[in-house]
Amino acid sequence: MSNSVPMQTSGDGMPSDRVDAGRLWQRLGTLAKIGATIEGGVDRPALSPLELAARRQAIAWANELGAEVSCDPAGNLFFWRHGSEPTLAAVLTGSYLDSQPGGGKYAGAYGMVAALEALAAIAASGRPPKRSVAAVCWTNGEGSRFTPGYTGSELFAGLRPMAQAFGSEDAAGNTLGDELAKVLAGQGALAQRPLGFVPGAYLEVHLEQGPALETAGKQIGIVTGVQGVRRFQVQVVGEAAHLGTVQRQHRRDALRSTVRIINTLDQFFSAPDMGFAVSQLRVKPNAPSIVPHEATFSVAVRHRENQVLKRMGDTIRLICESEKGLCGFTMVELASTPAVTFDPAVPAVVTRAATALGLAHTSILSLGGHDAQSLHHICPSGIVFVPCKGGISHNAAEEIAFADAEAGAKVLADGLWDLANR
Amino acid sequence: MSNSVPMQTSGDGMPSDRVDAGRLWQRLGTLAKIGATIEGGVDRPALSPLELAARRQAIAWANELGAEVSCDPAGNLFFWRHGSEPTLAAVLTGSYLDSQPGGGKYAGAYGMVAALEALAAIAASGRPPKRSVAAVCWTNGEGSRFTPGYTGSELFAGLRPMAQAFGSEDAAGNTLGDELAKVLAGQGALAQRPLGFVPGAYLEVHLEQGPALETAGKQIGIVTGVQGVRRFQVQVVGEAAHLGTVQRQHRRDALRSTVRIINTLDQFFSAPDMGFAVSQLRVKPNAPSIVPHEATFSVAVRHRENQVLKRMGDTIRLICESEKGLCGFTMVELASTPAVTFDPAVPAVVTRAATALGLAHTSILSLGGHDAQSLHHICPSGIVFVPCKGGISHNAAEEIAFADAEAGAKVLADGLWDLANR
Repeated sequence: MSNSVPMQTSGDGMPSDRVDAGRLWQRLGTLAKIGATIEGGVDRPALSPLELAARRQAIAWANELGAEVSCDPAGNLFFWRHGSEPTLAAVLTGSYLDSQPGGGKYAGAYGMVAALEALAAIAASGRPPKRSVAAVCWTNGEGSRFTPGYTGSELFAGLRPMAQAFGSEDAAGNTLGDELAKVLAGQGALAQRPLGFVPGAYLEVHLEQGPALETAGKQIGIVTGVQGVRRFQVQVVGEAAHLGTVQRQHRRDALRSTVRIINTLDQFFSAPDMGFAVSQLRVKPNAPSIVPHEATFSVAVRHRENQVLKRMGDTIRLICESEKGLCGFTMVELASTPAVTFDPAVPAVVTRAATALGLAHTSILSLGGHDAQSLHHICPSGIVFVPCKGGISHNAAEEIAFADAEAGAKVLADGLWDLANR
Repeated sequence: MSNSVPMQTSGDGMPSDRVDAGRLWQRLGTLAKIGATIEGGVDRPALSPLELAARRQAIAWANELGAEVSCDPAGNLFFWRHGSEPTLAAVLTGSYLDSQPGGGKYAGAYGMVAALEALAAIAASGRPPKRSVAAVCWTNGEGSRFTPGYTGSELFAGLRPMAQAFGSEDAAGNTLGDELAKVLAGQGALAQRPLGFVPGAYLEVHLEQGPALETAGKQIGIVTGVQGVRRFQVQVVGEAAHLGTVQRQHRRDALRSTVRIINTLDQFFSAPDMGFAVSQLRVKPNAPSIVPHEATFSVAVRHRENQVLKRMGDTIRLICESEKGLCGFTMVELASTPAVTFDPAVPAVVTRAATALGLAHTSILSLGGHDAQSLHHICPSGIVFVPCKGGISHNAAEEIAFADAEAGAKVLADGLWDLANR
């Protein structure tokens, strides 16, 4: 233990000494089999039987560890290591077990097994921390089956009404509430706990999902904030007609107007710091000889400054209006997650832990969203990043190195130990 | 009977005198109930149980009429009125009973009931024509469940190998051959006839599917030719990635490249006589936070001159190449139907019939495709158009006027009579 890392504890060594990287790696392999795809990734939709299987596996690991398990009404699972001063606000870490469709083996899963490993390491150190520590499995982290995501952490932090979240429907019309009820039943008898409380701090670990750490040759990213995102759905409405016989200038072609709108948006949001993407587009009737009468697409805009983000979102409507041609359109905002800058206390703890462990590290802004954004609203929060091979994520080819997985779990364990002893 | 219309027959009156427009209209209403949609149109996929029901209805009407019914291996139904000189090549009319998804009540159905009405009128005139006349129900006229269309007429005319046509798959993976076998079984025991022969002439009636006749105030369009169409499918392949974390210039975003390709094609093919449309587009994985790794779209180009049509099709590949960005693409030509100019003999017959009936008429180029294009390759062919309200077709709002439906059937009956007595 370095003298530069003052800990309010006594005893020998840090929890990071007890991190079992082999076990962590083996557990990643076990989770990767639940919903494994032929491409080598995983497909584990939120609240599906596959995610339930992954949750049951995590519960089994928590039981092995002797952690107390409880579940809240949002389906968030809590694995507890109790502290010596239980009246102090607990420190949380967490992740999620759902995946993107055809996603990778590490997003979510790595944060979960690292959280369990950190809990095990703290337990193995033989001294209880002052504050209780819980590893949380948040419900619907990805938000791909049920949009938007961060359901569990946002409900926990009181950012959304529960009825609205439970009413979210998947493509087949199943509601999140109904699917959650099945998962709660399938998890077996667990201690129930009420929704939400104010933690002492929150710290999670995730792969970067971009190429910055790999490019910079750093093993640890100390996340100082997260860029914000606004998500919209635009429905362009035209009129079905025979494609061959109605001249283009008279057609109310919803796809043609949509292509013009997207192309103009892409040109308009061309500044390097402006995130812009259209990833979903459905056309009706999508038939060979009928002018499309409807096209529905999603637009996400991202920026690190909330004022710019607001203007970007507001501009979308103006561009739809100017490029819609003979069609009409409606636009709804599906989700808005503001940019956040974390309380510097948690990044400072992470920096100290990485420094003490002799790991190359750098400060970084997260371009993707994380549950830590929800927790940020109620307690000092932060994220540890580890490098992601080639910056590839949300893809079966997603990959992290064993040594980086170990480094991230060690920083998490020591960081939580520090936070839990404040 | 006008002296300006020389007929090689004797007897009183023309078949048009015997056209029962009320019965024709009632039959249109009966067919419109088979696959009726809530929007007021029909959804009757080719070779589905619904199309089978429509075929059985047409067979029942042909039986009422005393027409001999036979079926060929392509599933084309023939309803025969035999002539007095059966060694002469028969004259055909025809249409189809499948529909566009969410299509109208008149495309296909009107041509079919008008053909049956013309056959009935010829029978009711009491004198057999010299040549036999058959009303044909062609298989898969629309080509929306199984692409491309005109399957029955193209097989009849020997324009496509049967194995290729039978291997065409619908979106659920059913082959045309398997679905046809079910329809053939469901039609009951019919006389079988071999595929194809060289008719004396072919004449069909259809609604215009565009606004030209309505705008010109004409009841009858005498179709002199059909513009050609080339249909392509383009698959753009990128790479899945996290939408928020990978910068746009590094993304291999298949949808972004597709939008640029379509937009450039739309600008390139902007001449008023150039038909261009993209009506189908599917995106994978079509998820909120994943860069689309695949986008597949259809392109149809249309022109009245085959040389221009060829160049338009060939240009598509060049534009995909220039606008594909970091993605790859593959392109296949799904169908190519050359522009045709009909043998003037049949349009001349139609002109004489319309003139004799005192109906306002005009020559017209068909912008949409028809089975007559297939028949054109083996015999003098033509099409009679009737006006289409607002030019709207391939839409539940498709509508024709009772008086125009009657006019078209009368011109068809007299035109067939003329052709069958040559």
